[in-house]
Amino acid sequence: MPRIKLCVAYDGTDYAGWQIQDNAKTVQGEIEKALSIIYSKEIRLHGSGRTDAGVHALRQYAHYDCDKDKGPKEDNILQAINFYLPSDIRIRGASFVNETFHARFNAVRRRYCYIISCSKYMSPFMKRYAVLHTKDKDVSLLNKYASFLIGEHDFTSFCSVSDANKTKIRTIYKASFTKRGDFIYFYIEGNAFLQNMVRIIVGTIFELERKGECVDEIKRILLAKSRFAAGPTAAAEGLFLTRVVYKDGERGSLEEL
Amino acid sequence: MPRIKLCVAYDGTDYAGWQIQDNAKTVQGEIEKALSIIYSKEIRLHGSGRTDAGVHALRQYAHYDCDKDKGPKEDNILQAINFYLPSDIRIRGASFVNETFHARFNAVRRRYCYIISCSKYMSPFMKRYAVLHTKDKDVSLLNKYASFLIGEHDFTSFCSVSDANKTKIRTIYKASFTKRGDFIYFYIEGNAFLQNMVRIIVGTIFELERKGECVDEIKRILLAKSRFAAGPTAAAEGLFLTRVVYKDGERGSLEEL
Repeated sequence: MPRIKLCVAYDGTDYAGWQIQDNAKTVQGEIEKALSIIYSKEIRLHGSGRTDAGVHALRQYAHYDCDKDKGPKEDNILQAINFYLPSDIRIRGASFVNETFHARFNAVRRRYCYIISCSKYMSPFMKRYAVLHTKDKDVSLLNKYASFLIGEHDFTSFCSVSDANKTKIRTIYKASFTKRGDFIYFYIEGNAFLQNMVRIIVGTIFELERKGECVDEIKRILLAKSRFAAGPTAAAEGLFLTRVVYKDGERGSLEEL
Repeated sequence: MPRIKLCVAYDGTDYAGWQIQDNAKTVQGEIEKALSIIYSKEIRLHGSGRTDAGVHALRQYAHYDCDKDKGPKEDNILQAINFYLPSDIRIRGASFVNETFHARFNAVRRRYCYIISCSKYMSPFMKRYAVLHTKDKDVSLLNKYASFLIGEHDFTSFCSVSDANKTKIRTIYKASFTKRGDFIYFYIEGNAFLQNMVRIIVGTIFELERKGECVDEIKRILLAKSRFAAGPTAAAEGLFLTRVVYKDGERGSLEEL
């Protein structure tokens, strides 16, 4: 059975997240609807992971299986799916892959970016894609807090109480803030993320900075292993899933699309 | 009577243009509504010019007069107006100016940018701000057509038949296409523009390029002085009013906001 890998971009503003749900518009739901038209049968799509309601993606990955010799040829899959999708979801790449490929289980790293506007007003063109913090931020202090998260830790404090994962241990490879113009970008890369994890990290670090807490404070929050030790969950609209890295070099040609 | 100059940015997607109208949401209408709350009386706003339905602005300028010693102090005007405005309209700058300043009559140059996406699909994040042309474009040919528009000409062929201006003579100082990444940007600067003028110029030049017409063809269209000699009106969503230049150095400090 041919397996197809998709690279997907979406503006999550009007969606109840990635994962399919009854009575809610979701990204997975919309793509499955388009696939069911193209292949004249129900198709199950497997994403690299879920994104919350309102969260965007520059490069989400997913795969599905279809009947041999049915449906469009490889070169036409992208256009065929895009034709049936709403314009806030776009397929960026589509290619046949080996059946050993799995969008979720073979993903070894996920990368997110969170965008903060530091202007005195929110640009009308960025209001769907960033959150506004009008007060000056100490970026080097933000980075000191963030550096404590790098490595393998139990992130119970930094995930939603409704997170269903058995283990809350995750490895963070990179976590840093960069200021460019009127915007601060928070880049974080890890093997996998818990529910709301990036947003709670951002919300907590901004609260620590605002209060001028010492940098050890974030260590104490980690060790507390309680959601109530951490700060607020930052708003969804600032968050983008930017990249997923696959083992066995399967990040392949889609990577640069 | 104190006169206040505003610099305004807006996402025009959901507006019936700049100019106030009965039974339609307009940018001028929304700002006047906000001003009437702040000053507890009706305020008439004068823009540098109209923008069509769906057209955006990075820097539109306007002025209004208010009673002396009433309303917020200069430092607070921006925040006060933004508080009452919808989030797709933002005041970028507000300052007291001399009564000789007039947002429309003192404006000597207007600058627009039109954005074309040349990707195989339209990014979900740019769909409100660009139009898609999937076919490769010859940018140097586009620039040859554009160069014929520079100078003083009668632009009857390049304006809506409903344009009410007495003279259709306008001076174009700059008109050029630049490719960056997957996007082509068309920059045009003139003393003033007629109704739909930038959009008809873009629509016509793209049609000439697509048909491979010789570069003299645009000269013939100019000389025909008939809207029917030109090509289609390009879609509104790709167009941005980016800057207005004032005489007497009144472009002043707002310029770099």
